[in-house]
This record gives sequence, C-alpha cells and structure tokens, in this order.
Amino acid sequence: MLDRQKNPQLNSHGELKHLLTIEGLPREILIAILDSATPFTGIAEREMKKLPLLRGKSVFNLFFENSTRTRTTFEIAAKRLSADVINLNINTSSASKGETLLDTVDNLAAMQADMFVVRHASSGAPHLIAAHLAATGREHIHVVNAGDGSHAHPTQGLLDMYTIRHYKQDFTGLTVAIIGDILHSRVARSQIHALTTLGVPEVRVIAPKTLLPTSVERLGVQVFHDMREGLRGVDVVMMLRLQNERMNGALLPSPQEFFKSYGLTPEKLALAKPDAIVMHPGPMNRGVEIDSAVADGAHAVILPQVTFGIAVRMAVMRMLAGGPA
Amino acid sequence: MLDRQKNPQLNSHGELKHLLTIEGLPREILIAILDSATPFTGIAEREMKKLPLLRGKSVFNLFFENSTRTRTTFEIAAKRLSADVINLNINTSSASKGETLLDTVDNLAAMQADMFVVRHASSGAPHLIAAHLAATGREHIHVVNAGDGSHAHPTQGLLDMYTIRHYKQDFTGLTVAIIGDILHSRVARSQIHALTTLGVPEVRVIAPKTLLPTSVERLGVQVFHDMREGLRGVDVVMMLRLQNERMNGALLPSPQEFFKSYGLTPEKLALAKPDAIVMHPGPMNRGVEIDSAVADGAHAVILPQVTFGIAVRMAVMRMLAGGPA
Amino acid sequence: MLDRQKNPQLNSHGELKHLLTIEGLPREILIAILDSATPFTGIAEREMKKLPLLRGKSVFNLFFENSTRTRTTFEIAAKRLSADVINLNINTSSASKGETLLDTVDNLAAMQADMFVVRHASSGAPHLIAAHLAATGREHIHVVNAGDGSHAHPTQGLLDMYTIRHYKQDFTGLTVAIIGDILHSRVARSQIHALTTLGVPEVRVIAPKTLLPTSVERLGVQVFHDMREGLRGVDVVMMLRLQNERMNGALLPSPQEFFKSYGLTPEKLALAKPDAIVMHPGPMNRGVEIDSAVADGAHAVILPQVTFGIAVRMAVMRMLAGGPA
Repeated sequence: MLDRQKNPQLNSHGELKHLLTIEGLPREILIAILDSATPFTGIAEREMKKLPLLRGKSVFNLFFENSTRTRTTFEIAAKRLSADVINLNINTSSASKGETLLDTVDNLAAMQADMFVVRHASSGAPHLIAAHLAATGREHIHVVNAGDGSHAHPTQGLLDMYTIRHYKQDFTGLTVAIIGDILHSRVARSQIHALTTLGVPEVRVIAPKTLLPTSVERLGVQVFHDMREGLRGVDVVMMLRLQNERMNGALLPSPQEFFKSYGLTPEKLALAKPDAIVMHPGPMNRGVEIDSAVADGAHAVILPQVTFGIAVRMAVMRMLAGGPA
Repeated sequence: MLDRQKNPQLNSHGELKHLLTIEGLPREILIAILDSATPFTGIAEREMKKLPLLRGKSVFNLFFENSTRTRTTFEIAAKRLSADVINLNINTSSASKGETLLDTVDNLAAMQADMFVVRHASSGAPHLIAAHLAATGREHIHVVNAGDGSHAHPTQGLLDMYTIRHYKQDFTGLTVAIIGDILHSRVARSQIHALTTLGVPEVRVIAPKTLLPTSVERLGVQVFHDMREGLRGVDVVMMLRLQNERMNGALLPSPQEFFKSYGLTPEKLALAKPDAIVMHPGPMNRGVEIDSAVADGAHAVILPQVTFGIAVRMAVMRMLAGGPA
Repeated sequence: MLDRQKNPQLNSHGELKHLLTIEGLPREILIAILDSATPFTGIAEREMKKLPLLRGKSVFNLFFENSTRTRTTFEIAAKRLSADVINLNINTSSASKGETLLDTVDNLAAMQADMFVVRHASSGAPHLIAAHLAATGREHIHVVNAGDGSHAHPTQGLLDMYTIRHYKQDFTGLTVAIIGDILHSRVARSQIHALTTLGVPEVRVIAPKTLLPTSVERLGVQVFHDMREGLRGVDVVMMLRLQNERMNGALLPSPQEFFKSYGLTPEKLALAKPDAIVMHPGPMNRGVEIDSAVADGAHAVILPQVTFGIAVRMAVMRMLAGGPA
C-alpha cells in the first residue's frame, strides 16, 4: 500500500481524484476502472448511446499540444455521459498572449469547471495543474492526463489493459512484448507500470539501444535488442508508433532500416504464440513499425482498442466526477 | 429502376443507406427527401427548435477540406435532431501524421459513429469510405457527401430542388438555366442530375467553352455560350460561384471580363420570365458572377435556399439514421 | 430617459433587444441584468449546473477576431442555459472567400439563429449587424457585442459592475480608479459608462498622456498622470491589460518603464483604502501592469470576476432570448 499522502491522485479515502499516471496507482483502482468500463462497451449495441451520469458537468479539453484523435475520444466519451464539453486549443489563444499556464488554469477553474482533460508537450504539466488546484483549495476539479511529454498517457495504458484482459482474461500467466521507441514513449511508460501492477510475470521491451531509457530494467522489464528473440512465445505484442521527428533524427538510420529490424511482419509475428494478439496505439505508420498484412490481419486488435478506449475513458470520467456507482 | 446491386447508396430494400451523389438515385427517393423536409422548415416558427429524432447518435463531421459554412449547416441540422456532433478538421490532425484516409475512418468508426458527413478535395472520397465500411462489415454507419472535389454536392442539389418546388410547385413544365463554371462545379453536376431525374424538360447550361466539360450534352442539357440567348424565357436561374483559384487562372481573362459576359445583371435577368427565381449556392462574389442589384432583388431566393438547406439536411439525416418516419 | 427611437438596443417597450454597448443604456436595465445574474452565481454549488431556459435556441459565436477565452465564457454560459452553440472563427472561412460581413450574417440568420455573439476587430461591427437585421425584418435575432475594436466590451463592463456591487454593495459612495491604456481599451470605455450610469460619484483614470483619449474628461472622469496621486483613497482599482502590440510601439518606452510608472505594486496599492479591491479583465501581464504579489494577494478579486462573468452572460442571454423571467 502506498503512502497516500504522497500520491496526489488519491483522496484521503484512497479514492481516485485525478488520473495523472499509472505509476503508483494501487492494483485495486486499476481493476475497478477496468470493471466499470465493461457496461460502457455494451453501449454500442444500444439505439440510445447517451447516459445522464455527467449531466450538467463541464469538461474542459485543454489541449496545449494538438491531437484531434485523442481529443475526439475524450469528447465523445464526455458527451455520451451527457457532460458539456468545451474544447480549447491553447497554443492559439491566451498562451500566445503571454499568460502563464497557471493563470489560464485559474481562469478556467473560475468558470466552474468540473474536469480538465490535459494534453501538454511538457512532462509533468497535469501534475503541476493538480498541485496548483490543491494549493488553491479547488480539489473538487478533477484532472485527467491525456498525454504529457514523454512521461505518461494513462488512459492509453488503461485501454490497453482492458484489451488484454478482454482477449486473455487473466494477466498472471502472460508474456508481453513492447516494441519500438521506448525512450520517447509516454505510452510505453504507462503500459509498463500497468502490466507490472496487474501482475504480468514477464514484460519485455524490444528496441535498439538508442531508443531505450538508461536503466530501463529497473522498471521490471527484460530487454531485447533482437526482435525475433524477443517475440518468441509472447502472448501479447504491443507496437509503438515511431514518431516522425525521430525518423529524420540522428537516432535512426532511416524508416526503411527501422522496418527491417523492428517492423512487425507476418514472418516475425509467427514466432509469437499462435493466439498472440497485436496492439498499436495509433496512428500507425504502415511500412515503418508495422506491416499492413499484420495491421489488417487476424491477430490485430487495434480497432477494438479504440472502441474499448471510449468505454475506459467513460469509466474514468464517471469514477472521478459522476458520483456514486 | 436501377440495378440496386450496383448502387452503393441503397440497401437491399431500395432504401437510402448513404447519400453520396444524386446521380442514379431513384426519383421516388428524391421526392421522399423533399417531402420529409417540409415539416422541418416549420421548426423556425416554434419556440422549441429541437427534436429528439437522433438523440444519442454520434455524427462526425469529417472535413478534409475546410468549409465553415457547410460544416455549420450540418452541425446545426444534427444538433436540432439532438445528435452529438463531433467536428474534425482532418488536415490539421492525423493526416499530417501520415495516417491513411481509411485508417482515420477505421478509427472513428471504432468510436461507434453513426454517421460520417464527409467533405474532401478529392472526387470519390465519400464513395471510397462507404465501400470500405461495406467491405469491413460496418454498413450501419451512414455516409453523407458534403462535397467531394468537382464530383458532387448532393445536399446542395437537394436543397436547390426543394427551393424550386417551393416556388414553382411542379418540375414538369420548367425551363432552368445553370450559369457559370460548370466544368469545376460539383454543385452543377448535382443540380443537373436532380433536375433531369425530377422531370424538368429543359435544362440549359450557360458558360464559355473553357468552363464546360467535354460532351456535357450527354447529361441531357442544352449548351449556350451567349448568356442573353440562354436566359430567354427561363423560369429558374441558377448561378454558380466563380471560385477564386479560377479567377487568376488561364481559363479566364479577368473577373471584370467574366462579369461582362456571364455576370447576372438586372438587364440580363429581364430576358427571363417575369416571375423567374434567382438562386446561388453561396458564398457570392458580388460583381463577379452576380450584380448586387440582383442578389438583393425581388427575384432572389438565395437566403430561403439556406433555410431550406437546414431542413433538407435534417430530412436526409433522419432518413438515414433516425429510424422509422 | 433616452429617446428610445435612437437607441438600437431597446425595443419599443424599452426592453433590451441587443447588447451592443453600455453607453446610453438606462440605469434600470443595468440593475435588472445585475439582479438577474445573482441566481446564476449559485449554480456553482449545485450538482446540476444546467437550466433549460434557452433549450432549443441556437447561439452563434461569430468571432471575426480570435479570443478563446471570451468565446469560452459565452459558450459555457449558453450551454448552461441548454442552448445549441455553434462556434465560427470567421477569419478562417467565408471571409477569406471574399464574402462580405453582411452576406455572412444573412446566411447565418437564414439558418434560423436566435442570437449572434459577435467579436470583431472593427469598432461598430455589432451595431452594423444589428442595424442590418432591423433593416431586413429580422429583429428577433439578438446581437451581443463580445468586444469590437477599441469601442466597447459591454459584458466585461457588466461583470465588473457585478463584482463591485458584490464586494461594496452600493455604488453611490465609491471612488474608482481605472489604470493603464485607456486610449485603446474597449474595456475602459464600457467601465466608465457603467460606473457613471450606476451613480459612482468619482471615477478616475490614471495613464500617461499618450494612452488617454483626447477630451476624456467629457466622459465624466478625473484624469491623473501620477499613479500614487490617483490611487489615494480609492475603493476600487481597475487595472487594464497592456496589449502586446502597444509594448513595442512608439507610445511607450518599454514594458519595464511602464511597470515602474503604472504597474500596480503592493507599495502603491497601500495608498488606496485598506479594504480596496483590485480588478483585472485578464489575461494579465504579470510584471507589466500588475505585480504578482498584488495579482495573487488578498485585495485581488480577479478570479471572482471570471465566475461572475459567466453568471452575467447567462443573465444577458436569458433576458434577450429566454422568454419571460
């Protein structure tokens, strides 16, 4: 059990107050989120997709870094809970007028926000906002991290866990491989914390040395530089997106070279278990980190990830702001 | 009657499933849309403009080409039907991250969309999306073409037909002239298909040779190069917008020259029937294709077109996704 | 009593029809708006923040000048009244297609708008729109000025009055100082008209000569160039934002110099009454017009201004379009 005084995500009763990172979240909280997401996946089959759980609440999507895709997932999740949603692309507004991040937050908080969904290019921005709300007596406003720098992307990590549990039922017998640019990936960090917390006995990372954090082993993972070796016998293959800015950088020879060594092809995938699933957080670079034959193949669960992602975000929002279950 | 196997817009019962183009749509479908739009025009007089016909449905406005005006008409139509509306300007998002069109569509479909309203600079993009949804077993998602390249703009064509019927009651005795840049106009193409399907006996196109498609006569229209000759005795004058990119191009001498030959002035309009109506899809270039005295004059029905456009879009959305009438 | 024939903001019964400027508005209207805002401030404490007063109404935010902050305040106010809100950033759309302002307005009006919230870089644009709606028989559409050029920002003026009344109860015994770039400030103009209409006996403006309008005394204010002198004994300190474009201009030596002479520091504030309140319309330039020790200090009511601003905008929208109180 954590020292809850030190975990800014939990209130004094150990309940989730903000979702900033998966690191340090108790296993029971992760499980509770996954469990409460299940009824929201069934919403797809209904004629009526809207539930009144957040009716009258104001959710502000604060995107200091542009991401239409992620913003859309939170927007649709909030609207299906009947919240009022306000989208703000902050780079085009007050930020350019010289206002500080915390002045912007203060102002929006004063508009009686109930939740901030925050995307920011700087690691730690959502923590900073949560700490500022606490310091100014406004802890009733909830913060959800929608991706901060290379730090964390907790809802992505949670939807990945939901997906794994959906297809594999149990975490405790699995071997999982995460492949690609671990160094710069907030997604990888959130995945590793979630997998180890949920009891996955073997988490592998597969990457060239230049795309691995130093001392990555301390996170409880096994390191592989050879993809074929790393894929052998795994139950779950989690691909990462190779970001454009890396492709032209000094860390990599070329996208083609990367594909040759670390791109997922049917031939390499054949080394995993026969019933292995393939995941990707999107958007995919086909022919760079993943071959189209795999992306569109029978092992891929990439689109179910998206569907589960809406349900998981609904579950998080409801747990934070929706009152008793 | 069409071979319905070949018309991707209709389901096996001959009902409208997508609205991609007016070309090939049965007359009875066009009439059904116009008929069902009528009650929605009355909504203006009510205190309460909202109807619950699409409540809980998710409508995604996928605008790969920017058009605030057209996006707004669909947004307001969907909101008046109580749908949840998500606006996506795709050029600023995943498209720039290298994701393919169909991957973007797959992702949004996985968010349990009910309808895609698609605007794209490339002709055929909405068809491609509809075909992809069919190929991947997701035909329950409806596609509405909001303008694709120089191909089609079917809701514009439908609102134009609604307007003509409102003022002229019957299509079967009319002479209609379409004037301007026929070659590049998706609007003109949709208008011609709608007019001929609805039984207008004489459809004229008036344009310089450089702004006419080759073999335009095959569409069932009469060609005029002289505006005065073409306007003589017409019931309906449908002006087209001269797009900015044409004005500086090799196809035209200058906007002033164009106005002299093909701009609609009161003097030229006097050659039409005394009760002729003047239409324009907007936004107007005053002094280029239309004189302000005509745009603001007694014959113009340009603003009623806009009002009817909301009602027609509501009718289309309701027919596609709103359940039984 | 005004000649109501000349005041385009009032209907023939003397009721508010548009909110274009505070100048010339009867005192009883200002008081009615402030009074009706009070219940909306209580909304913060409720679980359910939404009221159905504008349900089914369509509010168009027409922002010809970008301002995410102001747009957000109107959007959240309208949504809490259950209106449908359509946001339009017009510089990126039809305006760039060469359409005139009034053609854009005509089009949106034809979509059966109930209210236009207008922000424009040109002084008088909202008046022009209101006059055009009157001239074309569409006075049922209400116009709210959300800031036009250097002319007026009436909802800012109203929320400032609400804030003063909240903390000082009565206007008739107060001394109020407005400090900064009076010359270019629409906020200052709206504040001066509101304060004098509501009976504040002493309104001071404090600014260098280069940032004062000629004959500013005619507005009923006392002019000070020395900040210490002007602050002596005041009840209310209203800071203005120094706009970036001024900082590099010929009118000012440098932001540092400005701060030295006209920046509000704890030391200068000590010259005001001990219970003086400090206001700022935001976004603040800390270290330019206001010291952080003051901005975050005990006298500042800058964040309550924001909260009251939502309530005042709800009150205005409801008075204009919400039916009988």
